[in-house]
Amino acid sequence: MKDDAKLVITVGDEAGVGPEIILKALASKEIPKKINIQIVGNKKNLISKYLFLKSLGIKKILDPNQLHVEDLKISEAEVKEPSIDTGNASFLYLKHAIEIVKNSPNSALVTGPICKKLWNSAGHNYSGQTELLSEICESPNVGMLFTAKSPFTGWRFNTLLATTHIPIKEVPHKLNKNLINTKLDLLHQFCNKFKKKPTIHIAGLNPHAGEEGVLGNEEVDFINQAIIDWKIKNPLVNLSELKSPDSCWISSAQAWRGNKNNAPDGILALYHDQGLIPVKIISLNYSVNTTIGLPIIRTSPDHGTGFDIADKGIAQCQSMIEAIKTANDLLIH
Amino acid sequence: MKDDAKLVITVGDEAGVGPEIILKALASKEIPKKINIQIVGNKKNLISKYLFLKSLGIKKILDPNQLHVEDLKISEAEVKEPSIDTGNASFLYLKHAIEIVKNSPNSALVTGPICKKLWNSAGHNYSGQTELLSEICESPNVGMLFTAKSPFTGWRFNTLLATTHIPIKEVPHKLNKNLINTKLDLLHQFCNKFKKKPTIHIAGLNPHAGEEGVLGNEEVDFINQAIIDWKIKNPLVNLSELKSPDSCWISSAQAWRGNKNNAPDGILALYHDQGLIPVKIISLNYSVNTTIGLPIIRTSPDHGTGFDIADKGIAQCQSMIEAIKTANDLLIH
Repeated sequence: MKDDAKLVITVGDEAGVGPEIILKALASKEIPKKINIQIVGNKKNLISKYLFLKSLGIKKILDPNQLHVEDLKISEAEVKEPSIDTGNASFLYLKHAIEIVKNSPNSALVTGPICKKLWNSAGHNYSGQTELLSEICESPNVGMLFTAKSPFTGWRFNTLLATTHIPIKEVPHKLNKNLINTKLDLLHQFCNKFKKKPTIHIAGLNPHAGEEGVLGNEEVDFINQAIIDWKIKNPLVNLSELKSPDSCWISSAQAWRGNKNNAPDGILALYHDQGLIPVKIISLNYSVNTTIGLPIIRTSPDHGTGFDIADKGIAQCQSMIEAIKTANDLLIH
Repeated sequence: MKDDAKLVITVGDEAGVGPEIILKALASKEIPKKINIQIVGNKKNLISKYLFLKSLGIKKILDPNQLHVEDLKISEAEVKEPSIDTGNASFLYLKHAIEIVKNSPNSALVTGPICKKLWNSAGHNYSGQTELLSEICESPNVGMLFTAKSPFTGWRFNTLLATTHIPIKEVPHKLNKNLINTKLDLLHQFCNKFKKKPTIHIAGLNPHAGEEGVLGNEEVDFINQAIIDWKIKNPLVNLSELKSPDSCWISSAQAWRGNKNNAPDGILALYHDQGLIPVKIISLNYSVNTTIGLPIIRTSPDHGTGFDIADKGIAQCQSMIEAIKTANDLLIH
């Protein structure tokens, strides 16, 4: 990371675990010391959260007075419950943070968890933070990628979702050759940051990748052809044939704990749970949600607001630590 | 296992890895010594496979002359390639083995891998061994369950598939309240062998289990109601609310390696890859395919014929060892 580099971190919904995991994460030895960090959120709420956590006997926690907080002063000082106000504030924090990052050449964005329902209640009709990023950055082709660096081996595990938050019955209709090609482009660009000639695997849609049409026809109808077409355009990339979904992540699970043989640099999953079931089993707490295809770098922890545990001091900060480290890594690569 | 108990093992397709993994598995110290084993297959082929493996320097392998082989003498002595003959023989082995087990009160069946295409080529139109078992045993409501005993902790990991080898687009149409109730009954009966009051989890169909209808309507339309109905009929079972598929197997992954807190005794997966992606990542080589809902016990390794590696001496026998041990366990429980 260059000396003038900057990480902008939004607190997300003030009533969620966002403020807590940020203060905990920034006290961790895993965070590189030279990072220039800017928080977007309510400073008074961060201070009251800090004092509360201190009162519980938690020691590894950063004093917000040591932080550069961009305080928009739109929410109450002491936040007790999730509300339309906290939802509205979390939307405005993100909007402001995006503008800072867009205008700072050597910067990256880390977003705290927000509540989509409260965004909607506050009149901000987006299905998530990614959609706002995509709109403001005028980047229609973005990708939801989960990346995790193994604490055992340092190996990086990357899974991109071809389709995201849609019902399972809509998945076969949403997939097409063009979508698969676009997602393979995005995954390749990302893996390319870390390796000159990455190996990419892609999972089939149906059991056993359709078994030549016996267990589903999407593979023979267009998915196999999409792979052939993409390989012609990208002759230097190691793109495998379609994999049976139930064995597609086995080599990644092995690489995570030690044996890197045969593990790909990136996997394209065709739907949400096909990708996230293995991601969460293999790299729980270490996986980071990264939006790719934007002109800016954006990462976030892979969990939600945790409203039910937000006032207990028990929130785990590992995923926020990883989100910060990954944003830092991506600024270098 | 009682003294008169018997395990009947079919070799599956003679041209596949079946004979090799059986001879390797039976030489393992993990197999209880007192098991009365009967093999259904071609003895000459087992002997030539034995001599071939010996010639490769493989030492841990059982001499078929020490085995009780029920030789139907229907296939060639030396099998080199998969053919209609080997397909036909594997079908007749299974049929014969089912009859033996049906007529031996204290017995269980372990099936070697077969090739469905060769069954069909030989005129036996079944989509798999389970369907033949279901027909002969007159048991229409069978279940495909994957069970694995952790070599680290001894904890047993059970996943039942509500739907099996069907295209993903057919899954939402195939699911209904009755099917879910029937599968919960089967899973409960199985878990009950090992625990008086088992805990059962069930995964949703859609991302985040549909998020109250926002990401799919099957959960609110009938899956939640199926759970409520089943709980009323089974008040003593710990059946959880619907789980988000991407976090449903996390506690099982943790229990497999040590921390058994919160891990359920059984999980109902709604479709093939939802269940088999986590099963293969968590318990690779240790998971056993068990058909439940039959009047007999039946287990099999969780892999196929491996025609491509059948003449190389490199086939792994762990899953066959586990299939034999599980059949033995189920005879006791």
